[in-house]
Amino acid sequence: MASGKILVAQGGGPTAVINQSLVGVVLEARRHKSVSLVYGARHGVRGIINEDFVDLTQETSHNLELVAGTPASALGSTRDKPDLAYCQQIFKVLQAHEIEHFFYIGGNDSSDTVRIVSQEAAKVGYPLRCIHIPKTIDNDLVGNDHTPGFPSAARFVAQAFAGANLDNAALPGVYVGVVMGRHAGFLTAAAALGKKFPDDGPHLIYLPERVFELEQFLVDVKTMYERHGRCVIAVSEGIHDASGEAIAAQLAKDLERDAHGNVQLSGTGALADLLCEEIKSKLKIKRVRGDTFGYLQRSFVGCVSDVDQREAREVGEKAVQYAIWGDRDGSVAIKRNGYYSADYELLPLEAVAGKTRVMEDEFISPCGTDITDAFRLYLRPLLGSGMPDAYRLRPNPVAKRLHQTE
Amino acid sequence: MASGKILVAQGGGPTAVINQSLVGVVLEARRHKSVSLVYGARHGVRGIINEDFVDLTQETSHNLELVAGTPASALGSTRDKPDLAYCQQIFKVLQAHEIEHFFYIGGNDSSDTVRIVSQEAAKVGYPLRCIHIPKTIDNDLVGNDHTPGFPSAARFVAQAFAGANLDNAALPGVYVGVVMGRHAGFLTAAAALGKKFPDDGPHLIYLPERVFELEQFLVDVKTMYERHGRCVIAVSEGIHDASGEAIAAQLAKDLERDAHGNVQLSGTGALADLLCEEIKSKLKIKRVRGDTFGYLQRSFVGCVSDVDQREAREVGEKAVQYAIWGDRDGSVAIKRNGYYSADYELLPLEAVAGKTRVMEDEFISPCGTDITDAFRLYLRPLLGSGMPDAYRLRPNPVAKRLHQTE
Repeated sequence: MASGKILVAQGGGPTAVINQSLVGVVLEARRHKSVSLVYGARHGVRGIINEDFVDLTQETSHNLELVAGTPASALGSTRDKPDLAYCQQIFKVLQAHEIEHFFYIGGNDSSDTVRIVSQEAAKVGYPLRCIHIPKTIDNDLVGNDHTPGFPSAARFVAQAFAGANLDNAALPGVYVGVVMGRHAGFLTAAAALGKKFPDDGPHLIYLPERVFELEQFLVDVKTMYERHGRCVIAVSEGIHDASGEAIAAQLAKDLERDAHGNVQLSGTGALADLLCEEIKSKLKIKRVRGDTFGYLQRSFVGCVSDVDQREAREVGEKAVQYAIWGDRDGSVAIKRNGYYSADYELLPLEAVAGKTRVMEDEFISPCGTDITDAFRLYLRPLLGSGMPDAYRLRPNPVAKRLHQTE
Repeated sequence: MASGKILVAQGGGPTAVINQSLVGVVLEARRHKSVSLVYGARHGVRGIINEDFVDLTQETSHNLELVAGTPASALGSTRDKPDLAYCQQIFKVLQAHEIEHFFYIGGNDSSDTVRIVSQEAAKVGYPLRCIHIPKTIDNDLVGNDHTPGFPSAARFVAQAFAGANLDNAALPGVYVGVVMGRHAGFLTAAAALGKKFPDDGPHLIYLPERVFELEQFLVDVKTMYERHGRCVIAVSEGIHDASGEAIAAQLAKDLERDAHGNVQLSGTGALADLLCEEIKSKLKIKRVRGDTFGYLQRSFVGCVSDVDQREAREVGEKAVQYAIWGDRDGSVAIKRNGYYSADYELLPLEAVAGKTRVMEDEFISPCGTDITDAFRLYLRPLLGSGMPDAYRLRPNPVAKRLHQTE
């Protein structure tokens, strides 16, 4: 007889809407007669290893809805990237608790974990459905039109640059904003959606999809500064030289690496400070300011896309439907349908696991420092309703009285 | 015969609501029969010197309302701090254009400019009404319950720490957020309003009103980290040692100073990076992240307090009423009346000009690293309606099966 037990967990960096997916799983699962218990693992796969489970069957629907609207992983997360032995241990715990459906909400590393656990179950003929639920502000999952969490982070970045542009117009100078995104520039590119008038910033956008050359960067900044009397720049933390070495990593004295072998790029202002220093010393521009958006862009409460919320909820719901009504494991993916609607499908885990999507060429201008209208059209509907708008006074100059010869 | 001309300008750092004050002046002035023309100076006092005026009489009321809702100084701002000769030049231009009322929206440096210009006019018996309209995210104007711009920036800081706390709970470690505020800690203290549950961060708050000692800081962080398994810290950019030297300034290789002789504290991530480095190396904690909120906290579009908007509008309106119906110059100030309502009064310019308010002792806990309920009660109504709230899953632990002896 089937146990009717399901387990859900959250991995990787939190997002503004990852709890929507969690609650989508829980509420959808609870309405299925075949489901008896819904467990959540605390702090991702680490919580599975430690058998640190909470019984979400006992949670009220009302509180679940409130948690859904709260950013960051309500179950806790982890940066652990399980190897084969770790995945075998995960499977052992799932077996011990007679788990029949395993849902893991996370990015491409998490999908790889789901893939290995799924294989372990298949090896011994244990009937386990394993579903990966997409989540990443980097938008770097292949096979997805976009990933839940990205639209809200993109909205933060767009609103931040809209404001930085206004501030920079009021007190002119150079402004450098460093945005998250190790390999994919989607989030940095979102800065362009903060632009309204033709002379608005960001005037330059540097993406990890293109090689970064410091000399050319300085030429670009000089050109824009002379044109506009100011310059707003969006820079991805993942910019790198021709050899592929990250500009940030070249500067870091102590290279902190996580379990995935990744160098820490966020949580330090070094890249923004270096670029500002270069502009000040080489271009002799006095007012140069740099901000590193850091954790604000993924955790700020009160900046969320309603489209993102809805889709994050639905990928959770669809995951349960695929697991219970379907006969195969997989990764839920968002498909775009019209302008604008989203549909969902289940991709094979192998199609998504451990792979990285980067920005398509059609989204990047030939000059390499701007984005195309195709990208604007792609991103705009994802940002959701109620985007703030910026207005200007119209020019109505008054004739001078003292400086009439000027 | 009177010219009926008024001039308005914006000085210092932009805020989320400074355009409300501008529009308050313009719309209120336009309804008075004695007013014929409303000029705006572009980029503050520098625009007056350059006679760079726009005629706001020609602007539509509709567009003015839209500009009011847009953050940052719509007329442009300046960091110029006029000396006597500069103020005499300002007065010369005002005379040439037959300006009868001069309104300057800004902080304590701007109020000092208004004071000197007012004196110059009085010296020669020129009938000029000079009114200072308060604005500063630092909340450091004396004689004011609080200043327009502070509540919206405080809301950003509270929402940022609410989110940083959730992110830090999901992926535990140490998080350091550096907040603006050279001498006054009000904005940093606002971090505490992001706290809901007793174990929420910020767990430690460092204000410029107290001496910062690195050794004690490390002891504090260690204590909180051991208690909560994580630690969220709010730090003012203005923290200083016993001699009064800013911790940030001790680190800066190149001390950039503005026209006011102030060292640049914002637009660099150095302070956050130093503190993180100390925590990593001395306390051997691996996951330590630092964010410098930088310009986001004053320019981000879409995070504004409706109370702040309303009051910023009203100080502009009241300024015009004081100028036209009153017989003296002064600085408009906000008075608190009940829980919660605001009234306005006109203070003598000498009472405000060039002075700096810091946090009152009753707002700071005896331990020096937390704020009091008096501060919570003071700030809460200013943050406005619709503050995001954070919810948690309730603990319903599941019995272990493999680790039963644990």
